[in-house]
Amino acid sequence: MVAPKPFLDYIDSNVPKFIDRLAEAVAIPSISGDASRREDVKKMAQWLEAQLNKVGVKTAAIPLGKQHIEGQVLDLPPAIVGRIGEDPKKKTILIYGHFDVQPADKSDGWNTEPFKMQFDKEKGIMYGRGTTDDKGPIMGWLNVLEAHHALGVELPVNLRFCFEGMEESGSEGLDDFIVSEAKKGAQGWFGGVDCVCISDNYWLNTRTPALTYGLRGLVYFNLAVSGPGADLHSGAFGGAVYEPMTALIALLGQLVTQDGRILIPGVYDGINAASDEELEIYKNLDYSVDDLEAAAGGKIAVSDDKSTVLMARMRNPSLSIHGIEGAFSGAGAKTVIPAKVGGKFSIRLVPPQRADDIRVKVEKYLKEEFAKLKTKCKLDVEYLHGGIPWVADHKHWNYEAAKIATEVR
Amino acid sequence: MVAPKPFLDYIDSNVPKFIDRLAEAVAIPSISGDASRREDVKKMAQWLEAQLNKVGVKTAAIPLGKQHIEGQVLDLPPAIVGRIGEDPKKKTILIYGHFDVQPADKSDGWNTEPFKMQFDKEKGIMYGRGTTDDKGPIMGWLNVLEAHHALGVELPVNLRFCFEGMEESGSEGLDDFIVSEAKKGAQGWFGGVDCVCISDNYWLNTRTPALTYGLRGLVYFNLAVSGPGADLHSGAFGGAVYEPMTALIALLGQLVTQDGRILIPGVYDGINAASDEELEIYKNLDYSVDDLEAAAGGKIAVSDDKSTVLMARMRNPSLSIHGIEGAFSGAGAKTVIPAKVGGKFSIRLVPPQRADDIRVKVEKYLKEEFAKLKTKCKLDVEYLHGGIPWVADHKHWNYEAAKIATEVR
Repeated sequence: MVAPKPFLDYIDSNVPKFIDRLAEAVAIPSISGDASRREDVKKMAQWLEAQLNKVGVKTAAIPLGKQHIEGQVLDLPPAIVGRIGEDPKKKTILIYGHFDVQPADKSDGWNTEPFKMQFDKEKGIMYGRGTTDDKGPIMGWLNVLEAHHALGVELPVNLRFCFEGMEESGSEGLDDFIVSEAKKGAQGWFGGVDCVCISDNYWLNTRTPALTYGLRGLVYFNLAVSGPGADLHSGAFGGAVYEPMTALIALLGQLVTQDGRILIPGVYDGINAASDEELEIYKNLDYSVDDLEAAAGGKIAVSDDKSTVLMARMRNPSLSIHGIEGAFSGAGAKTVIPAKVGGKFSIRLVPPQRADDIRVKVEKYLKEEFAKLKTKCKLDVEYLHGGIPWVADHKHWNYEAAKIATEVR
Repeated sequence: MVAPKPFLDYIDSNVPKFIDRLAEAVAIPSISGDASRREDVKKMAQWLEAQLNKVGVKTAAIPLGKQHIEGQVLDLPPAIVGRIGEDPKKKTILIYGHFDVQPADKSDGWNTEPFKMQFDKEKGIMYGRGTTDDKGPIMGWLNVLEAHHALGVELPVNLRFCFEGMEESGSEGLDDFIVSEAKKGAQGWFGGVDCVCISDNYWLNTRTPALTYGLRGLVYFNLAVSGPGADLHSGAFGGAVYEPMTALIALLGQLVTQDGRILIPGVYDGINAASDEELEIYKNLDYSVDDLEAAAGGKIAVSDDKSTVLMARMRNPSLSIHGIEGAFSGAGAKTVIPAKVGGKFSIRLVPPQRADDIRVKVEKYLKEEFAKLKTKCKLDVEYLHGGIPWVADHKHWNYEAAKIATEVR
């Protein structure tokens, strides 16, 4: 179905306003993983709810309980749910999105301030934390709703919304809410929903949009290694004591090979090789190793083979080491022996991997490897959060409908 | 020589004032390794010069040239030199100290704000960055000078001072100044000096002061590993690309064993085993492994043998890994693949090791080890700074004099 001309005209003539609204959203540093930013996540929730109300969406801010983070007990940010359209003859679509973001700091290597959105008109590119993940996609729905509202045009479907503020931190609290809401059946916020649109996904490259019918899961760990009671000076103690950093580095070095093979025993159990039909899909996708390297900004693909790279990205587990907490992380030179260091790493999961099973295997392996080091430092394997991997049938009618809606006519 | 009673009385009755002065010095965050704190280092230099002038010391602030740091060109902080006493019949003693400090942040694990000195009267302990290294010892000289000045008592020796603001960053600029000053002979700031007192040293434990007659040197490196053009999301790229952190961790893991054996070939060349006479000294020192562990705040000594631990601390080289720049270093969980990471480590050197020779060996070894990883990431071995190790004859008259001066009578 081609969108009607008045709708398209409204969108085209309101581009500057829509960009300003996105910039306004980006300016709220709603970092869910940082306890000190929790109020900003809540502020972002309030802002979004007000925007939805303005265009006729009935909403509620759903409290999701408490969170233990960095030694504090904090309120989780509320989920913002909404509904518009009650016509039983129309399909009912549930839209999912999230209004929290990952941490970002200019010193991480950004060219611009992450929370001050910049629009490069010439290239048609916007820069700012959350611009694509995931504030931009949410704004897309606001724009659509605003156009219908302003023009007095009825929506072709009933819409339901579920926007959360903890996606970047394992969607803590959301599962419980969805389960309890599901029990309410037709009376619940998600009653009568025919299909779900997850508005938090990727294009395949910069040319071709993609319909995502699966997503890798996650287990995230902190390897806390401690030894001295406080940071020590390497001039006075270097050589005389076991150092937590030396132990942590050795342990992190036992996780994965350079080309991405995970070394934890049993981690690949149950994962099937791709079928011929699946391999055919990879072969025919509009994608190349150059696309990957252009997106990554470096010639760093693990393979020259397109299908291998696609499978590495989409259907195989992976392990990334993210950083170390508690060690020296500034510029320049500091001759410190850090007292307590936390190595952060995570594993992307694919079906049939289960977070609880992988967690047990990771903990067992790391404790064994740590024992082999024969250091006097102590290890605490902390499980920070996890997410379930999923894959759906891409031949279902909702994917077929989405495919038609996405095509350029 | 026992100090005269009026002098001791003056010191005793001015303790609160002296502590306040130290707190004032600690409050200036004169971090030489952080470009953004350079003005504070200069402020500290001015503060110190004014204090010296007040007690009759003739001073000068010596410009030491420029420094390239973090992409900027900055003035090095000046050295503050001074002189008091011109009696040719007296010995002339040169006092060295430094007024810069290491970085410190409460989040590193401090119980108190590092730049707000706290005095625990009950324990008689002061907490604050620079309290012992090295603002406290400098304040000690100010206290001595003030007492003589206030009481109108002549100093028993001529004093010369050399206080620098780059000690924690390889004493950049100081060597050139000292060499040029030495060429001036009697006319220079250090003309006629009979011996030097380095006022920047340790006690052996909390019971027994020590006279330091040697100091380990230092070579400090940053292993810069890069790959992607910007930070990547591990959900979208994990498994498909070579990751700089994986390479850096592997490389840092090739530096040193858990118990401190450095793995860089040739690094121990030329270092002699301790003679029987030297071993006898370690055996008789008032020191125990418990002392080390009490100072470190943990049961982490590399050996149960006192002499082994003392030699590890004093006369053997050591290698410490300090931290990683550019990776995720905050609390919580961030699923980032960092684009460029810098692994910081340093080696403590002992005679006859030379910084230039060790540097060559380190660079050669790390480049070879990196090549073995077969990653597509890039390595840049950056040499940040170095310091020469030294050892002197502990039977020289200046050590004998210092020994008498340090004894409790």
